[in-house]
Amino acid sequence: MARTATYDREDLIKRAKTVFWKRGWAGTSLKDLEAALDTRPGSFYAAFGSKEALYKLTLNKYAQEGAEKIDALCVERGPLGALQAYPRILVEDPTMGGHACMLAKTFLELKGQDHALAEVANDLLVMIEKKFADLFRSAQVNGDVAVHYDPETLARRYQSDLLGLRVLAARAPGQAQDIARDMAAELGRLGPGVQSD
Amino acid sequence: MARTATYDREDLIKRAKTVFWKRGWAGTSLKDLEAALDTRPGSFYAAFGSKEALYKLTLNKYAQEGAEKIDALCVERGPLGALQAYPRILVEDPTMGGHACMLAKTFLELKGQDHALAEVANDLLVMIEKKFADLFRSAQVNGDVAVHYDPETLARRYQSDLLGLRVLAARAPGQAQDIARDMAAELGRLGPGVQSD
Repeated sequence: MARTATYDREDLIKRAKTVFWKRGWAGTSLKDLEAALDTRPGSFYAAFGSKEALYKLTLNKYAQEGAEKIDALCVERGPLGALQAYPRILVEDPTMGGHACMLAKTFLELKGQDHALAEVANDLLVMIEKKFADLFRSAQVNGDVAVHYDPETLARRYQSDLLGLRVLAARAPGQAQDIARDMAAELGRLGPGVQSD
Repeated sequence: MARTATYDREDLIKRAKTVFWKRGWAGTSLKDLEAALDTRPGSFYAAFGSKEALYKLTLNKYAQEGAEKIDALCVERGPLGALQAYPRILVEDPTMGGHACMLAKTFLELKGQDHALAEVANDLLVMIEKKFADLFRSAQVNGDVAVHYDPETLARRYQSDLLGLRVLAARAPGQAQDIARDMAAELGRLGPGVQSD
């Protein structure tokens, strides 16, 4: 029974994530949540405490799924290959595209109101950035990225470009696919044998 | 008297822009607007018709000010110089930074709710993108950018990277300044004498 309860809870968090991701914090009404979770009015309060507590769980779930995706890509394609494939996957996968990055959206919606969830989103973006830095570092060990680059700087720029790309993906998916391809090609030119200035 | 009325209206739009930009669509209450505009409860309805009509005016004002800034930079530094300086100005100017791009913020907040203002924001982003393409085209005429590049492609990538940069500027201004400097350097390497692949 305990296992079933955990499963249901995970499923509810995933469903809430989908609606929060699309509609944002303020744009998601209790009615929207009840419809998405298929619960009776207000009964998710009993399960999650508050809309904010549930939103925080969905942010963590979102970031965790992103991190797992990156890990899986790394196993499949190595560190540089993962960094090259990730932008394309983000803009092409219909379950990922369309609504830009949930962490960036949340941060932008709530930072100006000093809402605690903006800080949660920012911390998770920093966690993902560290993951990118680890990949660039591994790619240097592999000899795929020249050692004179600073992995933290590369990771920061990569994440910044990726967030812009995902805004474009929500506006014009085809154009975003072209840029994802260019980003992959540029990453391929960070190798030690390539002229850089 | 008519001139005074126009002036006041412009001033009110600018003040509303500041609060909408910071707090977003849903995050701005009537109370916030009344405080920012220093008007009596609901009296801005008489002047602007609705919160949505006023928000639309502020989006147009925001985009117009951005376009004017770019034009002024172009007069001052030429097309390539303007493209190089703009990212740095966006992240360093305390009146611009801090809240990312208002057009992108609006789009991301409201697209998932199919709100008409998301489309307005998107159209203005396309207008600014065309402006960037014009600058790249002029830079090609000047010999500062190699003619084999497609100005529309360059403009799209430039705007995408800029939107990501401005998310970072709202999170970590110092890091965004480093990236703005790198972007300027990269634009300087689009010249016809520079090796590219």
